[in-house]
Amino acid sequence: MKQSYDETALLTQLQQTWYQTIPASQFMQVRPLSFTDQEFSVTAPLAPNVNLHQTMFAGSIYTLMTLTGWGMVWLQQQLAEIDGDIVLADAHIRYIAPIDAAPVAITTWAGADLSVLQRGKRARIPLTVELFCADKLSAVFDGVFISLPKSSA
Amino acid sequence: MKQSYDETALLTQLQQTWYQTIPASQFMQVRPLSFTDQEFSVTAPLAPNVNLHQTMFAGSIYTLMTLTGWGMVWLQQQLAEIDGDIVLADAHIRYIAPIDAAPVAITTWAGADLSVLQRGKRARIPLTVELFCADKLSAVFDGVFISLPKSSA
Repeated sequence: MKQSYDETALLTQLQQTWYQTIPASQFMQVRPLSFTDQEFSVTAPLAPNVNLHQTMFAGSIYTLMTLTGWGMVWLQQQLAEIDGDIVLADAHIRYIAPIDAAPVAITTWAGADLSVLQRGKRARIPLTVELFCADKLSAVFDGVFISLPKSSA
Repeated sequence: MKQSYDETALLTQLQQTWYQTIPASQFMQVRPLSFTDQEFSVTAPLAPNVNLHQTMFAGSIYTLMTLTGWGMVWLQQQLAEIDGDIVLADAHIRYIAPIDAAPVAITTWAGADLSVLQRGKRARIPLTVELFCADKLSAVFDGVFISLPKSSA
Protein backbone atom coordinates (compact mmCIF):
# COMPACT_ATOMS: atom_id res chain seq x y z
CA MET A 1 0.00 0.00 0.00
CA LYS A 2 1.38 3.35 -0.99
CA GLN A 3 1.93 5.82 1.79
CA SER A 4 -0.18 8.95 1.57
CA TYR A 5 2.58 11.09 3.07
CA ASP A 6 6.14 12.09 2.23
CA GLU A 7 8.22 10.26 4.85
CA THR A 8 11.49 12.02 4.02
CA ALA A 9 9.95 15.49 4.16
CA LEU A 10 8.25 14.77 7.48
CA LEU A 11 11.42 13.40 9.08
CA THR A 12 13.47 16.34 7.80
CA GLN A 13 10.95 18.77 9.26
CA LEU A 14 10.95 16.88 12.59
CA GLN A 15 14.74 16.95 12.85
CA GLN A 16 14.78 20.67 12.04
CA THR A 17 12.15 21.29 14.73
CA TRP A 18 14.28 19.43 17.27
CA TYR A 19 17.57 21.08 16.36
CA GLN A 20 16.11 24.60 16.20
CA THR A 21 14.21 24.43 19.48
CA ILE A 22 16.00 21.85 21.67
CA PRO A 23 19.77 22.54 21.70
CA ALA A 24 20.46 19.25 23.54
CA SER A 25 18.96 17.24 20.64
CA GLN A 26 21.45 18.82 18.24
CA PHE A 27 24.39 18.27 20.59
CA MET A 28 23.37 14.60 20.92
CA GLN A 29 22.97 14.35 17.11
CA VAL A 30 19.58 12.67 17.47
CA ARG A 31 18.35 11.62 14.02
CA PRO A 32 15.01 10.17 12.84
CA LEU A 33 15.58 6.97 10.85
CA SER A 34 12.24 5.88 9.46
CA PHE A 35 8.49 6.23 9.81
CA THR A 36 6.42 3.54 8.17
CA ASP A 37 3.42 1.41 9.07
CA GLN A 38 2.86 3.23 12.37
CA GLU A 39 6.44 2.47 13.44
CA PHE A 40 8.93 5.25 14.11
CA SER A 41 12.65 4.77 14.74
CA VAL A 42 15.39 7.17 15.87
CA THR A 43 19.13 6.90 16.43
CA ALA A 44 22.08 8.85 17.88
CA PRO A 45 25.82 8.23 17.64
CA LEU A 46 27.76 7.12 20.70
CA ALA A 47 30.50 9.83 20.71
CA PRO A 48 28.54 12.82 22.11
CA ASN A 49 26.55 10.49 24.38
CA VAL A 50 29.16 8.45 26.25
CA ASN A 51 29.64 8.12 30.00
CA LEU A 52 32.78 7.33 31.95
CA HIS A 53 32.41 3.62 31.16
CA GLN A 54 32.60 4.44 27.42
CA THR A 55 29.04 3.18 26.98
CA MET A 56 25.95 5.32 26.42
CA PHE A 57 25.11 7.73 29.25
CA ALA A 58 21.83 6.97 31.07
CA GLY A 59 20.66 10.57 30.54
CA SER A 60 21.28 10.39 26.79
CA ILE A 61 19.47 7.03 26.53
CA TYR A 62 16.45 8.54 28.26
CA THR A 63 16.54 11.68 26.11
CA LEU A 64 16.75 9.66 22.89
CA MET A 65 13.72 7.61 23.95
CA THR A 66 11.77 10.70 25.07
CA LEU A 67 12.34 12.36 21.69
CA THR A 68 11.25 9.15 19.95
CA GLY A 69 7.94 9.19 21.81
CA TRP A 70 7.49 12.95 21.36
CA GLY A 71 8.33 12.59 17.67
CA MET A 72 5.72 9.87 17.20
CA VAL A 73 3.00 12.12 18.63
CA TRP A 74 4.21 15.00 16.45
CA LEU A 75 4.15 12.77 13.33
CA GLN A 76 0.65 11.52 14.07
CA GLN A 77 -0.55 15.09 14.58
CA GLN A 78 0.97 16.05 11.22
CA LEU A 79 -0.78 13.15 9.48
CA ALA A 80 -4.11 14.01 11.13
CA GLU A 81 -3.54 17.73 10.45
CA ILE A 82 -4.22 18.43 14.12
CA ASP A 83 -2.21 20.90 16.16
CA GLY A 84 -1.22 20.45 19.80
CA ASP A 85 1.56 21.29 22.26
CA ILE A 86 3.15 17.96 23.24
CA VAL A 87 4.62 17.53 26.73
CA LEU A 88 5.81 14.54 28.75
CA ALA A 89 3.95 14.04 32.04
CA ASP A 90 5.46 10.91 33.45
CA ALA A 91 7.98 8.23 32.46
CA HIS A 92 9.57 5.03 33.64
CA ILE A 93 12.78 3.65 32.18
CA ARG A 94 14.45 0.33 32.73
CA TYR A 95 18.08 -0.14 31.67
CA ILE A 96 18.73 -3.72 30.58
CA ALA A 97 22.21 -3.78 29.05
CA PRO A 98 25.10 -1.35 28.42
CA ILE A 99 25.08 0.22 24.94
CA ASP A 100 28.43 0.25 23.15
CA ALA A 101 27.36 1.23 19.62
CA ALA A 102 24.79 3.59 18.06
CA PRO A 103 21.40 2.24 19.22
CA VAL A 104 17.98 2.36 17.55
CA ALA A 105 14.90 3.48 19.50
CA ILE A 106 11.59 2.18 18.15
CA THR A 107 7.99 2.96 19.05
CA THR A 108 4.69 1.81 17.59
CA TRP A 109 1.50 3.88 17.43
CA ALA A 110 -1.30 2.23 19.40
CA GLY A 111 -3.97 4.60 18.12
CA ALA A 112 -4.70 7.31 20.71
CA ASP A 113 -7.60 9.64 19.92
CA LEU A 114 -6.14 12.98 18.83
CA SER A 115 -9.47 14.38 17.63
CA VAL A 116 -10.27 15.56 21.17
CA LEU A 117 -7.73 18.34 20.53
CA GLN A 118 -10.06 19.81 17.92
CA ARG A 119 -12.75 20.04 20.60
CA GLY A 120 -10.38 21.99 22.86
CA LYS A 121 -9.52 19.03 25.11
CA ARG A 122 -6.14 17.54 25.94
CA ALA A 123 -5.12 14.16 24.50
CA ARG A 124 -3.42 11.61 26.78
CA ILE A 125 -1.02 9.34 24.89
CA PRO A 126 0.80 6.46 26.63
CA LEU A 127 3.72 5.18 24.55
CA THR A 128 6.30 2.44 24.95
CA VAL A 129 9.73 2.91 23.35
CA GLU A 130 12.23 0.07 23.03
CA LEU A 131 15.95 0.59 22.51
CA PHE A 132 18.02 -1.92 20.59
CA CYS A 133 21.78 -2.15 20.25
CA ALA A 134 22.96 -4.66 17.65
CA ASP A 135 19.46 -6.23 17.76
CA LYS A 136 19.62 -6.71 21.54
CA LEU A 137 16.89 -5.09 23.67
CA SER A 138 18.86 -2.73 25.93
CA ALA A 139 16.29 -0.38 27.50
CA VAL A 140 12.52 0.02 27.78
CA PHE A 141 10.76 3.38 28.26
CA ASP A 142 7.09 3.82 29.19
CA GLY A 143 5.94 7.41 29.03
CA VAL A 144 2.67 9.32 29.15
CA PHE A 145 2.59 12.23 26.72
CA ILE A 146 -0.05 14.94 26.88
CA SER A 147 -0.98 17.07 23.90
CA LEU A 148 -2.58 20.38 24.80
CA PRO A 149 -4.93 22.23 22.45
CA LYS A 150 -3.35 25.43 21.14
CA SER A 151 -5.29 28.48 22.22
CA SER A 152 -6.60 30.30 19.16
CA ALA A 153 -5.33 33.83 18.62
CA MET B 1 29.80 20.23 63.87
CA LYS B 2 32.76 20.77 61.59
CA GLN B 3 32.77 18.78 58.37
CA SER B 4 35.60 16.28 58.10
CA TYR B 5 35.86 16.79 54.35
CA ASP B 6 36.64 19.59 51.93
CA GLU B 7 33.31 20.29 50.26
CA THR B 8 34.72 22.63 47.60
CA ALA B 9 37.47 20.21 46.56
CA LEU B 10 35.01 17.30 46.33
CA LEU B 11 32.51 19.25 44.23
CA THR B 12 35.26 20.53 41.93
CA GLN B 13 36.50 16.97 41.43
CA LEU B 14 32.96 15.75 40.75
CA GLN B 15 32.31 18.43 38.16
CA GLN B 16 35.63 17.65 36.45
CA THR B 17 34.73 13.94 36.40
CA TRP B 18 31.40 14.76 34.75
CA TYR B 19 32.77 17.19 32.18
CA GLN B 20 35.73 15.00 31.21
CA THR B 21 33.77 11.76 30.82
CA ILE B 22 30.16 12.77 29.99
CA PRO B 23 30.12 15.34 27.14
CA ALA B 24 26.38 15.95 27.61
CA SER B 25 26.93 17.14 31.19
CA GLN B 26 29.32 19.82 29.96
CA PHE B 27 26.99 20.91 27.17
CA MET B 28 24.16 21.21 29.71
CA GLN B 29 26.48 23.12 32.10
CA VAL B 30 25.44 20.94 35.03
CA ARG B 31 27.03 22.32 38.20
CA PRO B 32 27.17 20.95 41.77
CA LEU B 33 25.95 23.60 44.24
CA SER B 34 26.49 22.24 47.73
CA PHE B 35 27.04 19.10 49.76
CA THR B 36 26.36 19.39 53.46
CA ASP B 37 24.61 17.34 56.12
CA GLN B 38 23.93 14.45 53.74
CA GLU B 39 22.17 16.79 51.31
CA PHE B 40 23.48 17.34 47.79
CA SER B 41 22.19 19.95 45.34
CA VAL B 42 22.91 20.56 41.66
CA THR B 43 21.82 23.16 39.10
CA ALA B 44 21.96 23.90 35.36
CA PRO B 45 21.11 27.06 33.42
CA LEU B 46 18.04 27.19 31.21
CA ALA B 47 19.69 28.32 27.92
CA PRO B 48 21.32 25.04 26.76
CA ASN B 49 18.40 23.06 28.18
CA VAL B 50 15.28 24.65 26.68
CA ASN B 51 12.56 23.02 24.59
CA LEU B 52 10.27 24.56 22.00
CA HIS B 53 8.03 25.98 24.74
CA GLN B 54 11.03 27.95 26.10
CA THR B 55 10.86 25.95 29.33
CA MET B 56 13.27 23.21 30.40
CA PHE B 57 13.38 20.17 28.11
CA ALA B 58 12.10 16.93 29.72
CA GLY B 59 15.30 15.13 28.73
CA SER B 60 17.49 17.77 30.37
CA ILE B 61 15.38 17.69 33.56
CA TYR B 62 15.83 13.92 33.75
CA THR B 63 19.57 14.13 33.04
CA LEU B 64 20.08 16.79 35.72
CA MET B 65 18.27 14.61 38.29
CA THR B 66 20.16 11.47 37.20
CA LEU B 67 23.50 13.23 37.66
CA THR B 68 22.35 14.48 41.08
CA GLY B 69 21.65 10.92 42.22
CA TRP B 70 24.83 9.56 40.61
CA GLY B 71 26.82 12.39 42.21
CA MET B 72 25.42 11.61 45.66
CA VAL B 73 26.58 7.98 45.40
CA TRP B 74 29.99 9.15 44.13
CA LEU B 75 30.33 11.62 47.05
CA GLN B 76 29.38 8.99 49.62
CA GLN B 77 31.92 6.57 48.11
CA GLN B 78 34.59 9.29 48.34
CA LEU B 79 33.78 9.94 52.02
CA ALA B 80 33.81 6.21 52.79
CA GLU B 81 36.98 5.74 50.69
CA ILE B 82 35.23 2.93 48.83
CA ASP B 83 35.51 2.44 45.09
CA GLY B 84 32.69 1.31 42.81
CA ASP B 85 31.35 1.74 39.27
CA ILE B 86 28.00 3.52 39.62
CA VAL B 87 25.23 2.82 37.09
CA LEU B 88 21.51 3.59 36.96
CA ALA B 89 19.29 0.50 36.72
CA ASP B 90 15.81 1.92 36.78
CA ALA B 91 14.09 5.28 37.18
CA HIS B 92 10.68 6.91 37.34
CA ILE B 93 10.14 10.62 36.82
CA ARG B 94 7.04 12.71 37.31
CA TYR B 95 6.89 16.19 35.81
CA ILE B 96 4.79 18.52 37.96
CA ALA B 97 5.24 22.01 36.54
CA PRO B 98 7.07 23.72 33.66
CA ILE B 99 10.50 25.13 34.59
CA ASP B 100 11.19 28.66 33.36
CA ALA B 101 14.36 29.50 35.34
CA ALA B 102 17.49 27.63 36.47
CA PRO B 103 16.21 24.88 38.80
CA VAL B 104 17.84 23.21 41.80
CA ALA B 105 17.86 19.41 42.14
CA ILE B 106 18.22 18.11 45.70
CA THR B 107 18.72 14.63 47.13
CA THR B 108 19.26 13.35 50.66
CA TRP B 109 21.35 10.34 51.62
CA ALA B 110 19.23 7.69 53.32
CA GLY B 111 22.19 5.57 54.35
CA ALA B 112 22.69 2.65 51.95
CA ASP B 113 25.36 0.12 52.91
CA LEU B 114 28.37 0.68 50.67
CA SER B 115 30.67 -1.63 52.64
CA VAL B 116 29.39 -4.63 50.64
CA LEU B 117 31.55 -3.30 47.78
CA GLN B 118 34.64 -4.11 49.82
CA ARG B 119 33.47 -7.71 50.01
CA GLY B 120 33.16 -7.85 46.21
CA LYS B 121 29.37 -7.46 46.15
CA ARG B 122 27.24 -4.87 44.39
CA ALA B 123 25.48 -2.15 46.39
CA ARG B 124 21.86 -1.26 45.55
CA ILE B 125 21.02 2.37 46.28
CA PRO B 126 17.48 3.75 45.83
CA LEU B 127 17.45 7.56 45.75
CA THR B 128 14.77 10.22 45.42
CA VAL B 129 15.68 13.53 43.79
CA GLU B 130 13.40 16.56 43.94
CA LEU B 131 13.61 19.50 41.53
CA PHE B 132 12.66 22.99 42.60
CA CYS B 133 12.17 26.09 40.49
CA ALA B 134 11.77 29.30 42.51
CA ASP B 135 11.01 27.13 45.58
CA LYS B 136 8.20 25.28 43.79
CA LEU B 137 8.44 21.49 43.52
CA SER B 138 8.50 20.89 39.74
CA ALA B 139 9.62 17.27 39.27
CA VAL B 140 10.27 14.12 41.32
CA PHE B 141 12.73 11.38 40.30
CA ASP B 142 12.98 7.96 41.93
CA GLY B 143 15.96 5.94 40.75
CA VAL B 144 17.76 2.77 41.69
CA PHE B 145 21.52 3.09 41.37
CA ILE B 146 23.83 0.08 41.47
CA SER B 147 27.48 0.34 42.42
CA LEU B 148 29.62 -2.49 41.11
CA PRO B 149 32.83 -3.57 42.81
CA LYS B 150 35.87 -2.74 40.68
CA SER B 151 37.78 -5.79 39.64
CA SER B 152 41.31 -5.63 41.08
CA ALA B 153 44.15 -5.53 38.57
